Amino acid sequence: MFDRIVICGVGLIGGSFALALKSAGLVKTVVGIGRRRETLEEAQRLGILDEIATDWSVALKGADLLLLAMPVGQMDTVMAAAAPYLEPQTLVTDAGSTKSDVFEAVYNHLGNSLANVVPAHPIAGAEKSGPAAASASLYQDKRVVLTPLPENDPTSIDRVRAAWAACGAVMSQMSPQDHDRVFAAVSHLPHLLAFGLVHEIQARGNAEQLFGFAASGFRDFTRIAGSHPEMWRDICVANRHALMAELDAYLTELAYLRALLMQGDGKALESLFAEASAARNAWAETYLK
Amino acid sequence: MFDRIVICGVGLIGGSFALALKSAGLVKTVVGIGRRRETLEEAQRLGILDEIATDWSVALKGADLLLLAMPVGQMDTVMAAAAPYLEPQTLVTDAGSTKSDVFEAVYNHLGNSLANVVPAHPIAGAEKSGPAAASASLYQDKRVVLTPLPENDPTSIDRVRAAWAACGAVMSQMSPQDHDRVFAAVSHLPHLLAFGLVHEIQARGNAEQLFGFAASGFRDFTRIAGSHPEMWRDICVANRHALMAELDAYLTELAYLRALLMQGDGKALESLFAEASAARNAWAETYLK
Repeated sequence: MFDRIVICGVGLIGGSFALALKSAGLVKTVVGIGRRRETLEEAQRLGILDEIATDWSVALKGADLLLLAMPVGQMDTVMAAAAPYLEPQTLVTDAGSTKSDVFEAVYNHLGNSLANVVPAHPIAGAEKSGPAAASASLYQDKRVVLTPLPENDPTSIDRVRAAWAACGAVMSQMSPQDHDRVFAAVSHLPHLLAFGLVHEIQARGNAEQLFGFAASGFRDFTRIAGSHPEMWRDICVANRHALMAELDAYLTELAYLRALLMQGDGKALESLFAEASAARNAWAETYLK
Repeated sequence: MFDRIVICGVGLIGGSFALALKSAGLVKTVVGIGRRRETLEEAQRLGILDEIATDWSVALKGADLLLLAMPVGQMDTVMAAAAPYLEPQTLVTDAGSTKSDVFEAVYNHLGNSLANVVPAHPIAGAEKSGPAAASASLYQDKRVVLTPLPENDPTSIDRVRAAWAACGAVMSQMSPQDHDRVFAAVSHLPHLLAFGLVHEIQARGNAEQLFGFAASGFRDFTRIAGSHPEMWRDICVANRHALMAELDAYLTELAYLRALLMQGDGKALESLFAEASAARNAWAETYLK
């Protein structure tokens, strides 16, 4: 499928993409480029990378595909640096958790390659990061959302879709605006809420006592508060308008819950909990195996 | 250890207590009493109960221990009904997730038995409820908090502690007020927040689309939104003062986060996320195996 792919940002996401294509026998040479030499060397030791590049002109020479898998805050810098060396056959995709900002960066920097740039968002995370966490099966049965550009060559869309599908992913397609609203609701807001809860508790004088009695509910609710701070900074900043709209809707819900508590309105609380519980259990039935 | 124990509310919590004592060979006869005949019959079929009682006078005849394991909203009614039949040797403990309200009910109804009533809170839940979810190992290595009364006979405290410890629990002790503040922070608030998030999403026109893209972060964050609505109604109402104080502290945190989003202050967001992430990961290192 590919002779040479280049991965910028060889952590969990980029590393797993490389391992999945390698284990499917669909790529000959995987080249890594990124900020930290140690990370690239670790990825090479782990068999994720065949080559490390320090220079975009070398990395992209003869490349079939470039995957941008750094935190989204670096999209601008990286696209500006890579743009001059993209060849006519080089496809570009990314793994950013936000898409409106990626579109903006694409139109700012990759104007000469719009036919070949097909943004994507793999819905696969883990609280662990780095190349050591990468695995060939990370994308197996996970969703990957493509947000193609109007300027895309249909063949480019097909080839990028096929690359992600070859990693085992279930593909779908959305506009970048829809994408960012949907993920603000079901991913970015829960992360913000979990970070906020743990931050608020750890700052207290009796944090030790509180953590000492936290059990499995707390464990699961706060798992995502262990996520990568820089990655989530970038997501929250990039998607802050959609995220604030979600936060405001949630604050309205909390104001309602607060009023029910104040009134001791058990009947209304129970009916709200029952609706939530039924919806959560129906979701789990449908989407969790 | 016990000839006859009586369990009121034979669901996950009460059923697991019975199974644990049975499998340790520490009880001869387990008697169940409760609102729903079907539940009691199911528990008997599952080997949790030896007898079903419909009448407190029969249930408590010769009983060594009574465990109150119904939702906390029924404490008043049940204690009033059971009080006249408690014998001088009958210990009483409970499994309520809130303790100030249990104390109030105890002083209202069990004034003649204060030496023997040792309230407890087993920190073991699951999103599943009912006798079919009960297991002899539910309490293994889980914490159980005793909140003894000043009027307790020390021997009664020791025997109740020994019964929970025999289920495999790690025992600790607190005042009911401290208990309710600690659990408002690390348990009741997260449940309220998770119920609120799912309730808010399921009410939207595009709920199907949103649920369709929810992934593992959403799965874990909302697991506790699948919890038992009546049980959580009772907990939220019983502990509403401590819970509102926690909710207010959290709303202050969210107002701060909202301001950081509004300003696009990536630096402050990253530092807050990094503190939360470090605290969450340190907690996991210490408390999760």
